[in-house]
Amino acid sequence: MRQAGRYLPAYQAVRAKVDFQELYKTPALAAEVTAQPVEILSFDAAILFSDILVIPEAMGMKLEFSEGKGPRFPQPLRGADDIGRLHHPKIEVELDFVLEAIRLTRQRLAGAVPLIGFCGSPWTLATYMVEGGGSKEFANIKSLMFGQPQLLHSLLENVTAALVDYLNAQIRAGVHAVQIFDSWGYVLAPDDYEEFSLRYTSRLIAGLKRNGVPVIYFLRGRGCGLKKLAASGADVLSLDWTIDLAEARQQIEDRVALQGNLDPIALLATPEVARAQTKKILAKMVGASGHIFNLGHGILPNTPVENVQAVISAVKE
Amino acid sequence: MRQAGRYLPAYQAVRAKVDFQELYKTPALAAEVTAQPVEILSFDAAILFSDILVIPEAMGMKLEFSEGKGPRFPQPLRGADDIGRLHHPKIEVELDFVLEAIRLTRQRLAGAVPLIGFCGSPWTLATYMVEGGGSKEFANIKSLMFGQPQLLHSLLENVTAALVDYLNAQIRAGVHAVQIFDSWGYVLAPDDYEEFSLRYTSRLIAGLKRNGVPVIYFLRGRGCGLKKLAASGADVLSLDWTIDLAEARQQIEDRVALQGNLDPIALLATPEVARAQTKKILAKMVGASGHIFNLGHGILPNTPVENVQAVISAVKE
Repeated sequence: MRQAGRYLPAYQAVRAKVDFQELYKTPALAAEVTAQPVEILSFDAAILFSDILVIPEAMGMKLEFSEGKGPRFPQPLRGADDIGRLHHPKIEVELDFVLEAIRLTRQRLAGAVPLIGFCGSPWTLATYMVEGGGSKEFANIKSLMFGQPQLLHSLLENVTAALVDYLNAQIRAGVHAVQIFDSWGYVLAPDDYEEFSLRYTSRLIAGLKRNGVPVIYFLRGRGCGLKKLAASGADVLSLDWTIDLAEARQQIEDRVALQGNLDPIALLATPEVARAQTKKILAKMVGASGHIFNLGHGILPNTPVENVQAVISAVKE
Repeated sequence: MRQAGRYLPAYQAVRAKVDFQELYKTPALAAEVTAQPVEILSFDAAILFSDILVIPEAMGMKLEFSEGKGPRFPQPLRGADDIGRLHHPKIEVELDFVLEAIRLTRQRLAGAVPLIGFCGSPWTLATYMVEGGGSKEFANIKSLMFGQPQLLHSLLENVTAALVDYLNAQIRAGVHAVQIFDSWGYVLAPDDYEEFSLRYTSRLIAGLKRNGVPVIYFLRGRGCGLKKLAASGADVLSLDWTIDLAEARQQIEDRVALQGNLDPIALLATPEVARAQTKKILAKMVGASGHIFNLGHGILPNTPVENVQAVISAVKE
């Protein structure tokens, strides 16, 4: 899961000197915190330290970060004029700091473990852009969907086109795998998920010049039927803990691997609890092919490091 | 869905005179706002105006309501001592205001439509009691579940026993159906949902002296497999919009009816949109037996009344 380092003292030491935005926009620092979990805790892979909102920002939206409140777009998209003002980003120019962070991380890791790049899904980015930030009801994006579906489709098309260029640039810069985060698809009805989220994520995947780079598709909740998700073109479905992995394995073909899906809250108590809950997930996949153990969502900043170590030991055993 | 009246000017006129807590604790006013949607908009049934948190309050917890922030328990349950201090409520004494509201509503409705009583599920109430209010991560209740499962089981047993008495008293007072709201089960993994939520809701249902009164089981998300939910003993599963009703109908036996499941946000735009989205839900259940049309979750206070009328017309046609 992204930003895996925020529970680490070594990460907090870097963050004490720079704010979140400066951290991911400074390639040397981004590379440093990307490598930390691998160097300190021996994870099997590194995931780039960055933020999904660099794309809306590169498309012309002003982005603000404030401590404790998360990122916000102070001028969210609310109509055709706002959406028409967005431009197609020049990735190699406007987002070179991401590509440079990839190059520096590859140098630092020196082939020890693979590096995973990522982006937000078209639906998740459109949701941020229309809501302006997190939301309880998602009333703005859904009202756009119910009331002006064609306008939302045009926004999703533009975001998808930007993301195709962005992930292709990440692949050229050297990531070994890419993960697409559909963090907010779970708020949709299955039919709407297919039309407004899955369709564009599938198009994004189809637009990649992969050269063997696998694609991981993360989603919360179920979105729609697992067979349809497995037909997205992704090599791996990354699921949260609300889906039973053994049941998911039965429903979809073996071509698609599964990633997940321990509840991050299971890491807040003791090493023994973290270990037992990890073993419970692993037991579901005994004899099944293609399982990448992971949390079902981002790790919490107040997670004790010894509990993370207990999870890693349990998996490696 | 409960508190259906809060978008109605007639409801707001009552609320201008009393706060939320005084409203549900004053039987004549609770009966008035319960009957309003039926009298003004010709709904097919009335749902009692009350709050699920009357049970934790009657078990000894201090409850505070503040405008705009929702209900809170300022002293949430955090350990065995807190849980041990709870007592089994005397429903006919401590919650007579609910029973009196039921009796007055029955008089006022005079048999025109049925009256639905309700309660929170054991898991949802335990979550409120341990978290103290709404939560983003549900870290306290889940840490209790992962770290001290036996203590959580004892809390769930006590809450279930109180709820059995409470729903039986509502049935004796005259409700025609009862609905159990499991609003927060969706945060659990399927195995944990079965052990900590479904098990206790099933026990609650088994403890009812129903005399023909049907039980409706509302849940958000999927909880666990629909077949297991259908075996809870409930007559109706009430689902939110993230589950496709036609797919749900295929998965479970005809003995269990389905209720739902329009996204409340579909009622924020225009009457035409509300009507079209309602027809889309109805079309999924053409030829299927046992469908109660409803929203998939509570109606939003800023819903235009004309959009509610458009939904009702579409269903009645």
